[in-house]
Amino acid sequence: MTKPGIKVFAPATVANLGCGFDILGLALNQPGDEIIARMTENAGQVIISKITGAKGQLPYEPTKNTAGMAALAFLKNQRADFGLDLEIHKKMPIGSGLGSSSASAVAAVVAANAFLKHPLHRRDLLPFAIAGEKVASGSAHADNVAPALIGGIVLARDVDDIHRIIPPKSLYVVVIYPELQILTSEARALLSNQVSLGAHIQQSANLGGLLLGFERSDFGLIKRSLKDIIIEPQRADMIPGFYDVKDAALVNGALGCSISGAGPSLFALCDNSFIANNVAEAMVKAFAKHKIEAKPYISEVNKEGAKIY
Amino acid sequence: MTKPGIKVFAPATVANLGCGFDILGLALNQPGDEIIARMTENAGQVIISKITGAKGQLPYEPTKNTAGMAALAFLKNQRADFGLDLEIHKKMPIGSGLGSSSASAVAAVVAANAFLKHPLHRRDLLPFAIAGEKVASGSAHADNVAPALIGGIVLARDVDDIHRIIPPKSLYVVVIYPELQILTSEARALLSNQVSLGAHIQQSANLGGLLLGFERSDFGLIKRSLKDIIIEPQRADMIPGFYDVKDAALVNGALGCSISGAGPSLFALCDNSFIANNVAEAMVKAFAKHKIEAKPYISEVNKEGAKIY
Repeated sequence: MTKPGIKVFAPATVANLGCGFDILGLALNQPGDEIIARMTENAGQVIISKITGAKGQLPYEPTKNTAGMAALAFLKNQRADFGLDLEIHKKMPIGSGLGSSSASAVAAVVAANAFLKHPLHRRDLLPFAIAGEKVASGSAHADNVAPALIGGIVLARDVDDIHRIIPPKSLYVVVIYPELQILTSEARALLSNQVSLGAHIQQSANLGGLLLGFERSDFGLIKRSLKDIIIEPQRADMIPGFYDVKDAALVNGALGCSISGAGPSLFALCDNSFIANNVAEAMVKAFAKHKIEAKPYISEVNKEGAKIY
Repeated sequence: MTKPGIKVFAPATVANLGCGFDILGLALNQPGDEIIARMTENAGQVIISKITGAKGQLPYEPTKNTAGMAALAFLKNQRADFGLDLEIHKKMPIGSGLGSSSASAVAAVVAANAFLKHPLHRRDLLPFAIAGEKVASGSAHADNVAPALIGGIVLARDVDDIHRIIPPKSLYVVVIYPELQILTSEARALLSNQVSLGAHIQQSANLGGLLLGFERSDFGLIKRSLKDIIIEPQRADMIPGFYDVKDAALVNGALGCSISGAGPSLFALCDNSFIANNVAEAMVKAFAKHKIEAKPYISEVNKEGAKIY
């Protein structure tokens, strides 16, 4: 019980990546959440002693909080003889399509794991982070949690079968967060539960191209493949000015642009930092024409995921 | 006009590969078609002087024959000052789901190209082979033509965007051709033109896994991913005993098993030749229990595609 508190950073993530609905995601270097965790003597118990940056949007009750629930699931599974006190410092917007709940869940589990005598491998923490994420999203997907945990671009073939791709070094991700709020559950409810066979084939072809493009650092292939003909057209109307902002990204040289997760953030991939800066500026301006304030983030792909300080 | 005739071999191919409907295919070492081509003085003209191995099933009229049409399209595009006389030696069953028409189209174009002073690159022959294939299948897909042309496992993201994956060295392909005939057009007519969103996501996840598995020589991932939950269930009834034969493959250690192209052939992938032999034997026996004679082919993946002798 002598260990001091530890601080963990877990990054924001972009899920879906166009044609990889529910199965692809990538981690950013910034923004991200921080959790400060301290051991307590109440075995298996979690208290949340502080939350900053959430404007009262997040519950302190551990079973209703993604970080709390993730830590509880982990402590229970590990039959831990200690409990945890968590401070949650939200450093990214909630409900933005940037995997906010996943970042907190991942940070909590990584912190809890660090207190074990024999910590688990990073990948083995996935089910606990997913258990936490489920509190917020209501369903179990790994497309935000997995990249927040292990970094890189991640293919989540299944919740227990995740594969990291380290992308080309010069790949930059632009994320634009417009000041709109969208609930993931509403964004899901919008979607038709049927896809035409032709659209399925075309989307699959692009998914295959995107994966090979990432794996082989083939920017041309990434550019040709980064398209979403199924989900994006159904969600675009949630975001005023969506097509203008996307056009601004493409005209300024982005490899591709689509909705980050369930939105409202947009992301664009770029093949160097110069283009990324231009693209970010153009996208913010395009939102401004629609009287929407938007905040840009520019980041390389985070190659390691959550980090213990 | 002094060049002698040349002989070209183009391999059979397995299209779809489970979860890659219309976009994935691989080439076999055997069986395959042979075409012997000779120059003639009738610029741009093609005659088919001989067809063997086709039991009268193929037309001699060049515009109605896949090889003839492919050669015609190529000669026209290249404004060739010569014509061609083609002998077509079918060495694989027609209507078997093994890309018979693609093999002939590819062999014809590769032969025609060899007579040019400045032959085109192999990949640039794709549109002409597709033009030929279209005569037989009525639609333009590259999933058989592309691997027959360039070898390997091929992702055809689009008809002009093909990507070769060289698979793990010890990967063996078992193909079982049961003596049933299925028309590709009928096999297509069976398919629902709607896919559920859930099935689309699951199939996409498996496609991603399969591609990464091939690219990274990860047999475990190939095994977990080689599944088709969309097309196979709709076509299985065309093939009496399908599920028994598939079970025989899996029980004997195949990584996965599904329908080759539009059927009726089945294919199984195996991680070595010993397993491949056992799997082939078990699959033939399983068909025999349903009173169906079946012919096995065992082959590594053909890494080069069509070959000039």
